[in-house]
Amino acid sequence: MALASLPKIKGNFKGKDILSLDQFDIASLQKLFKLTKQMAEIAKKSKPSKLLAGNIVTLLFYEPSSRTFGSFAAAIKQLGGQTVEILDPQHFSSVYKGETFEDTIRVFEAYCDAIVIRHPQVGSAQAAADIASFAPIINAGDGPHEHPTQALLDLYTIYERFKKLDHLIGVVAGDMLYGRTVKSLIRGLALYKANTVYLLSPDKLRLSKEDFANFQKRHIKLIQIESEQDIPKNAHFWYWTRVQKERFTNLKDYEKVKNKFVLTPKLIKERAGAQTIFMHPLPRVGEISPKVDSNPRAVYLRSQIRNGMYIRMALLALILGKIRQ
Amino acid sequence: MALASLPKIKGNFKGKDILSLDQFDIASLQKLFKLTKQMAEIAKKSKPSKLLAGNIVTLLFYEPSSRTFGSFAAAIKQLGGQTVEILDPQHFSSVYKGETFEDTIRVFEAYCDAIVIRHPQVGSAQAAADIASFAPIINAGDGPHEHPTQALLDLYTIYERFKKLDHLIGVVAGDMLYGRTVKSLIRGLALYKANTVYLLSPDKLRLSKEDFANFQKRHIKLIQIESEQDIPKNAHFWYWTRVQKERFTNLKDYEKVKNKFVLTPKLIKERAGAQTIFMHPLPRVGEISPKVDSNPRAVYLRSQIRNGMYIRMALLALILGKIRQ
Amino acid sequence: MALASLPKIKGNFKGKDILSLDQFDIASLQKLFKLTKQMAEIAKKSKPSKLLAGNIVTLLFYEPSSRTFGSFAAAIKQLGGQTVEILDPQHFSSVYKGETFEDTIRVFEAYCDAIVIRHPQVGSAQAAADIASFAPIINAGDGPHEHPTQALLDLYTIYERFKKLDHLIGVVAGDMLYGRTVKSLIRGLALYKANTVYLLSPDKLRLSKEDFANFQKRHIKLIQIESEQDIPKNAHFWYWTRVQKERFTNLKDYEKVKNKFVLTPKLIKERAGAQTIFMHPLPRVGEISPKVDSNPRAVYLRSQIRNGMYIRMALLALILGKIRQ
Repeated sequence: MALASLPKIKGNFKGKDILSLDQFDIASLQKLFKLTKQMAEIAKKSKPSKLLAGNIVTLLFYEPSSRTFGSFAAAIKQLGGQTVEILDPQHFSSVYKGETFEDTIRVFEAYCDAIVIRHPQVGSAQAAADIASFAPIINAGDGPHEHPTQALLDLYTIYERFKKLDHLIGVVAGDMLYGRTVKSLIRGLALYKANTVYLLSPDKLRLSKEDFANFQKRHIKLIQIESEQDIPKNAHFWYWTRVQKERFTNLKDYEKVKNKFVLTPKLIKERAGAQTIFMHPLPRVGEISPKVDSNPRAVYLRSQIRNGMYIRMALLALILGKIRQ
Repeated sequence: MALASLPKIKGNFKGKDILSLDQFDIASLQKLFKLTKQMAEIAKKSKPSKLLAGNIVTLLFYEPSSRTFGSFAAAIKQLGGQTVEILDPQHFSSVYKGETFEDTIRVFEAYCDAIVIRHPQVGSAQAAADIASFAPIINAGDGPHEHPTQALLDLYTIYERFKKLDHLIGVVAGDMLYGRTVKSLIRGLALYKANTVYLLSPDKLRLSKEDFANFQKRHIKLIQIESEQDIPKNAHFWYWTRVQKERFTNLKDYEKVKNKFVLTPKLIKERAGAQTIFMHPLPRVGEISPKVDSNPRAVYLRSQIRNGMYIRMALLALILGKIRQ
Repeated sequence: MALASLPKIKGNFKGKDILSLDQFDIASLQKLFKLTKQMAEIAKKSKPSKLLAGNIVTLLFYEPSSRTFGSFAAAIKQLGGQTVEILDPQHFSSVYKGETFEDTIRVFEAYCDAIVIRHPQVGSAQAAADIASFAPIINAGDGPHEHPTQALLDLYTIYERFKKLDHLIGVVAGDMLYGRTVKSLIRGLALYKANTVYLLSPDKLRLSKEDFANFQKRHIKLIQIESEQDIPKNAHFWYWTRVQKERFTNLKDYEKVKNKFVLTPKLIKERAGAQTIFMHPLPRVGEISPKVDSNPRAVYLRSQIRNGMYIRMALLALILGKIRQ
């Protein structure tokens, strides 16, 4: 869908590109979350859904991501839709023969009703949306920039547990500098009232001054902390993230910080509240001890994963106009 | 479907291999084109088609081609059929363990109702058809040799616009030596009466003497031209093609000729007629200026792409016996 | 499905992991084979089956295998089910970012109803089953260890032809040391009464002493033979196998033994009985002469392939609880 600037959802998803969390307001999130809950029921029912029957969605993945790819593929198929799956087009396609990104997008939109795109370059999903004439584009991650469906599933997971997204206290740990998921989560929470987020990260991976200043202008309280001992005992959620090895040019620097903050049963015992849930966008590579997995409040391998599929089901049904809105 | 020589369609597609444009006569093309028009309606309708429900088509792609792959996959799924998708089998399959092409074809035909094959070697689709006992084979490109569904969609695109395939004047530009699409297009037009095609190519990429002599025996007038100034002003279509870098052993030779003839708004203004449509088989890598894209008669990113899907839908429905014929 | 040890089927497949042939008893095999025969009818019928409609099965293939992959994909789709297809996850996925095998399994089971896994490491399917909380795991080959659906289709192919799996005489040739298919076949036949299997292999590729001793404890008679002249004339089946090049560190050793025993029309004339069927698990790389292919009793490119799809259809329908049991 060609567009001048980022289109606001304003409660009507039909035909809209989904490029950034900044397109959403509270009412749109509530509409999406209500439908997401229904999608969970559909996925569990034995009777197959036909909501997307006759619809084809292209999954155009320029970059490895089995989890996001699998989640979208399953979401589409759970609703009876079909996929055209193009993985790694730079090696297995016309792109290899020198085709431009623009032409690739135009070709694929002719075959389908929507395109889900993952691409390492910042702004690629926006570029695809500018090019496409009629097929809505869903951003499944454009480099370190945006990954709105991840942010939506994170917000939904918190909402599902606490039945609200305001007056919450959260702790985010790990990479604030490069990690896009943390920034999206903060932007989402800033839409609601009276949220506080504690930021725990190695010195070198703190939120950039620019990002910090920008977030301060929004309605959210951010508190930098330096040690696990500063974690408040009444947090609603802990959101741990991976330190992204691929962002470091010097491996020694990576080794120094990668395991600085590890989520362990001991830390939970010392600093978590009775209701605190434990989240992670995955993949993890050591920053959460496997011993935490069996904790019933560890949602990263349970509801967070399933919610990712449900929220994508809801989003696709809305964008493709299958739900009255 | 095992066969002695190239089987003529003669109005009955059921169970036939589709290997070459030379299998078609005018009546068969008309039958296909009539159904293609209906397929366009089916693809646009919101009600899902069940025409290929229960059918499985294997897409066996030994060579990169996201466009042709996506077009076939979407065509099958538009009609409610399913695919088994095998990409790059030489690296990800039994072929890697030393399995012969013959065994691979026999194995896959056991799983499905038809096989779409793309393979870099000339004659590979014919070889597959000779081996297969019951599954029809569709050639999706055997190296520089044949790519019949591309030729069919090109012919259909011209037919859709002018409601005829005779008494036409066309201009083809680019690579006549290696490019298979141009040769197929000429062969198709030669079935009809009183067509004239102007050939505009760099010296080194002219039609081979052998090809030229062969085409002369058919019912078509071919005129070699050397400059854009020789383009007749009353052409029905311009068909531009990519100079195929991969055919050149010397990169300098490629650089010399690649941009010799570029389709620009200026050239359109100077030499195109009011009705001329602008075609390209894609991918393009510079031989059509992006400024031409917005011209409403530029069909290469619009109807030509969509027609590719529609014609494959029609062809599959006919071959699999889903349409009375 | 998390489990302590290998779960016996005992006639009830619902929700069970399929990891090894050792889970089966005669009654379970009979139930499976009866349904497999019905699946052959379903696959041939023009009316599409809806048995797996609404079901999603993940195909998680860490290793090349187009044949097994295609067979499972087709089986699922023949029954109206859908797939999430993850090929080569170590290069195209979160695994690449350092995700553990455990996390990958947990993520994918959240999206689907069952996981078919192929992995080069011995015990990987069992490991996946230990991790998964609810999705049944089907082993599609864990290195040289087990490949139960191959063994099942081999047994079914013999059963289909002779209407029994007892009192049979078989000849297996090729690689007994590394080849898993032969060992699985022997284990399957050992469940039944009075079977005799002649083992014909190069010296260096004989069954290990340990395997031979273990098989001797089961109800099956094994006879090592050294020459094609020792093949009994009344065998029910000949089962030829590939000498696996990838197991040899020294290529010369491989060259010495690879073509030691070749199945030719001449050998058939000299040593086969009138009813003997000729089997091979494929891929083959020279150990069966293509001249044998046209022999009507050569089943390796015919019923053995199709039976692979039918048995996987039956197995999936049973595991997913679509058949009363």
